[in-house]
Amino acid sequence: MPKQDRSRATRRRLLEAAVACLAEHGWAGSTVSVVAERAGVSRGAAQHHFRTREDLFTAAVEYVAEERSTALRALFPEGAADRRAVIAALVDLYTGPLFRAALHLWVAASNEDQLRPRVTELEDRIGRETHRIAVELLGADESVPGVRETVQGLLDMARGLGLANLLTDDTGRRDRVVAQWAELLDEALA
Amino acid sequence: MPKQDRSRATRRRLLEAAVACLAEHGWAGSTVSVVAERAGVSRGAAQHHFRTREDLFTAAVEYVAEERSTALRALFPEGAADRRAVIAALVDLYTGPLFRAALHLWVAASNEDQLRPRVTELEDRIGRETHRIAVELLGADESVPGVRETVQGLLDMARGLGLANLLTDDTGRRDRVVAQWAELLDEALA
Repeated sequence: MPKQDRSRATRRRLLEAAVACLAEHGWAGSTVSVVAERAGVSRGAAQHHFRTREDLFTAAVEYVAEERSTALRALFPEGAADRRAVIAALVDLYTGPLFRAALHLWVAASNEDQLRPRVTELEDRIGRETHRIAVELLGADESVPGVRETVQGLLDMARGLGLANLLTDDTGRRDRVVAQWAELLDEALA
Repeated sequence: MPKQDRSRATRRRLLEAAVACLAEHGWAGSTVSVVAERAGVSRGAAQHHFRTREDLFTAAVEYVAEERSTALRALFPEGAADRRAVIAALVDLYTGPLFRAALHLWVAASNEDQLRPRVTELEDRIGRETHRIAVELLGADESVPGVRETVQGLLDMARGLGLANLLTDDTGRRDRVVAQWAELLDEALA
């Protein structure tokens, strides 16, 4: 592999290990050393890519969020699609390891001044991008009063469903809630 | 004050200090000593009331959740009331220090085996009680298919709105989302 490709592959391994580490061990248990070991990379190489712990973990959440956005768009290559399927896919964004990792980062940022501005900015960026994708795939017309808030509320609900899935497997209940709200939202957006 | 009343007052002071402490400093910064000092109680007296850190903080979240439930019912003494007002009051449950404290406890429990079963059981109990109040105040008829899930989705949305309020003041956006979803719910539950 050429040097540049190797460097990019190392970076990606570190980012993926960082998200997995955050999701499993939380912020307190997530250090550059732990991630480097998990990724099979030396601590020095890890620090070459990411100068600080904050750099590594905010970059990791951003990278995986972008991967998820790309995957979500790829699920619906034609753009606006069956609303129920889109709603289910949007909710799925909030129930996997990425959401768990992001949640640990947000909660840590609420008490850590060093982390707070970076995570606030990151959350804002990811939130806007997710909203943009949701509007596009749902074929929602935001020039109609209330439509913007209907879509925002759906993403808030998805975030709340993610939280409800943190300690126990909430799949059964979630599927029923999503089925019901998909029906209500389909009507509201029609 | 009779001895029993004094003991009850001390206990209450400890519980309130514990929730404030969790909300401000998170789980890592919340110990029995910190709470005892904040409550103006000796460490020994605090440990007389709560044997372990887990005892203190789960009892604190439960106590404040019960206080909030009582206050919510008191807002609508006639039972089923104007749905928009009820929805706004339900969402308010998730945007104050209690939600912030509970969130820290949940997230810590997801990585700590000692905390996890207790917080899971607590979350389940508080969730069921909040659902019961919501159904009652919204005058929702759960024998109608979909109504149960409609109310559950509303509480999931409220939880997501609480999370969105963690790092920045989200009041303006939240008010618009709640107004729109209150309209959707009012129609769905009519």
